[in-house]
Amino acid sequence: MSKINIALVGLGQIGNYLMNELNKKKNDIELKTGKKINISAISAKNINKKRRFLINKKIFYKNPLKILNSNKIDILFECIGLSDGISKKIVETALKNKIHVITPNKALISKHGNYLSKLAEKNKVNLEFEASVAGGIPILRTIKESLATNKITKVYGILNGTCNYILTEMENAKESFHSVLKKAQKLGYAEPGNPKLDLNGYDAFAKIRILSSLSFNKNISKQKSLMEGIENIEFKDIEIANQLNFRIKLLGITELRNNKLFERVHPCLVKKDTYIANVSGVMNAVILHGNPVGETVLQGEGAGPGATSSALMSDLLSILRGNIKFPFGVSSRKRKSIRSYDLNKYSNSLYFRFEVNDKPGVLSQITHTLAKRNISVERLIQIPDNKNKKASIIIITHKTNELDANKCLQLFKTNKNILKIPTRIRLF
Amino acid sequence: MSKINIALVGLGQIGNYLMNELNKKKNDIELKTGKKINISAISAKNINKKRRFLINKKIFYKNPLKILNSNKIDILFECIGLSDGISKKIVETALKNKIHVITPNKALISKHGNYLSKLAEKNKVNLEFEASVAGGIPILRTIKESLATNKITKVYGILNGTCNYILTEMENAKESFHSVLKKAQKLGYAEPGNPKLDLNGYDAFAKIRILSSLSFNKNISKQKSLMEGIENIEFKDIEIANQLNFRIKLLGITELRNNKLFERVHPCLVKKDTYIANVSGVMNAVILHGNPVGETVLQGEGAGPGATSSALMSDLLSILRGNIKFPFGVSSRKRKSIRSYDLNKYSNSLYFRFEVNDKPGVLSQITHTLAKRNISVERLIQIPDNKNKKASIIIITHKTNELDANKCLQLFKTNKNILKIPTRIRLF
Repeated sequence: MSKINIALVGLGQIGNYLMNELNKKKNDIELKTGKKINISAISAKNINKKRRFLINKKIFYKNPLKILNSNKIDILFECIGLSDGISKKIVETALKNKIHVITPNKALISKHGNYLSKLAEKNKVNLEFEASVAGGIPILRTIKESLATNKITKVYGILNGTCNYILTEMENAKESFHSVLKKAQKLGYAEPGNPKLDLNGYDAFAKIRILSSLSFNKNISKQKSLMEGIENIEFKDIEIANQLNFRIKLLGITELRNNKLFERVHPCLVKKDTYIANVSGVMNAVILHGNPVGETVLQGEGAGPGATSSALMSDLLSILRGNIKFPFGVSSRKRKSIRSYDLNKYSNSLYFRFEVNDKPGVLSQITHTLAKRNISVERLIQIPDNKNKKASIIIITHKTNELDANKCLQLFKTNKNILKIPTRIRLF
Repeated sequence: MSKINIALVGLGQIGNYLMNELNKKKNDIELKTGKKINISAISAKNINKKRRFLINKKIFYKNPLKILNSNKIDILFECIGLSDGISKKIVETALKNKIHVITPNKALISKHGNYLSKLAEKNKVNLEFEASVAGGIPILRTIKESLATNKITKVYGILNGTCNYILTEMENAKESFHSVLKKAQKLGYAEPGNPKLDLNGYDAFAKIRILSSLSFNKNISKQKSLMEGIENIEFKDIEIANQLNFRIKLLGITELRNNKLFERVHPCLVKKDTYIANVSGVMNAVILHGNPVGETVLQGEGAGPGATSSALMSDLLSILRGNIKFPFGVSSRKRKSIRSYDLNKYSNSLYFRFEVNDKPGVLSQITHTLAKRNISVERLIQIPDNKNKKASIIIITHKTNELDANKCLQLFKTNKNILKIPTRIRLF
């Protein structure tokens, strides 16, 4: 039996863990697929970095592109993680050379997935990216295979473990965003250098784009839509939400509304007794509405090298079993683009928190402005800060559309008694 | 392009729904697999039963075995549902004729899965049964494919929607087991004729056997183990559990303990704030511990023709994509039998409810008997029924093994002041 030659490009936290898994599970892979694997080339920026295994210099390449010149590779793992640059180059080159590619790289897939899937189909190889969304949760395979004939109308969930950890820990430890962020960085739950892409919703949005494409058999959308992160959530918001029997969660949501695509990522107030409110810490969860299957929920570890490797290995086994398929479930030629839902029409109950000078008339100015934009108040709480002659005013509105809410927030800017841009959180 | 010929045997609730799905989703199937399907033979006991589609008499067979004599069939759906008899015969015959088989029949697979999978492997066809466990939840495919290289150590969950509906509704409506059972039968959640196999744990146990086999790469076990249903749960138990901050759930659990297989199905007291306690109504949920993936949770509709058809269709697409694989993930030749864990060693905190005559000394007799078997009491509640000169005594014990608990229950039998066999529910 001939061996399957594997190249592994990128030996960071994930590549490192994967390398060990591949070595440890060789027999298991043979047992389940009848195929022997051989790691025949590896590549990383720095050969001398401390790793969990000794690097075999004979198979090491500093430049990953050189691997493809001098080896017969069957399957390539891309674990570098850039949206462009060498990540895109090596995946592109591999596919053109009829090499199957497996990657956990959501930035690459959400940006270039349309192009790369065409390339894979043209060359009759697989492009697999189960690990790019929700880590160890097999959500992509579930949509592509297990629920393949369902009509999916909505997918949503907690897709960023970093944010979910921070929000959970702010509540539990009663600490500020910044102090919990530091803790998260220490624990390896947030990037030490630049955690911005997790915190501002970008990471969750990339995953939402991939989920939309698979769920609705459409091209990956390029449209800008609603993307908000958790950087402006203060402990005060968590505390007030708590009193109102809510929890704050960063949700990613994609759905078809009147056959238009509506993708969004933003913090939500969710009722404490709901399932999603009780997904804590670094866990991820995805909820999917399909016909005829009904509501399906998947929950698991959304990140970390263990969960990610589990997904990468499932892609490998799928290829080894000869499960050749379209990267996005249907042929690129059959995937259409889809128009976007008009964000201005999106309406929700809203939570506003105003920080104001505690002067007569301020409350009336706020409610007056809201009324002018047809925003009706369901609930109002004023929390005094007598020492500083300030107050927090919390308003829960009846259903309000984005257009009115945005215009209203503009109007508040000119009010000098409102000390900072009001915090807005949408109710789910 | 040649068409794939499909036979559908059994046109009850599931076969009926599936037939419609197959017709409705022909284009979708072609889009996702490149294959055209053709329903070339159907079979049912009664051609005249009212159905959602008109029966094409040209393709109808009263005797399903005759289908295979006169047609070239590629894939057969078995939707009759017997553990033996014609269900076994038609599946056996199809596999021997190199026809792929798809079935939701857990009774058949849990009883004859070892034999039938060997037959499928020998004839190089697929035997698929995703729908046999937890309906629309893709738990089998998740274990076989998505988590294929994980070391799974424990799988448990709510695997019977009928029981979960009854327990949920007893709590919500404050009604007796028998009145809720009637409601369930009216709603189609429990079989009108003989709901016994759902209620006594048999159905959940069949699913546990299949899950064990897939999770631990072992043959389906034949051993008897702990199987208890919910027939003896009274509203009183639900109410008391509630006061103690518990809920009663029928759980199926399989795990490796010291490399021995421990399969069980029984009602459990679960803390109200846990995930599993909040899976309500006819929903199913499966929780799985794997390394390196961590804890993975899947929840969805566990029964009903829609969810079941979704799973059957996923099996069909898997076959059409050419994803030929071992029915239980690894070759039958490589699957070993595994010894059973000694049930007597299983220890839990226990909930006992005694119905007694309210006479002096009865409580002391009970606690004395418990002490004799080394069972130590953590909590005791006595609820008087003064009118009838009776009382309920509820005891929560510290960890107690099965052997001691069973012997103790024997001893209570001779006590005439204990009016019926005490109810025992294990804490989870």
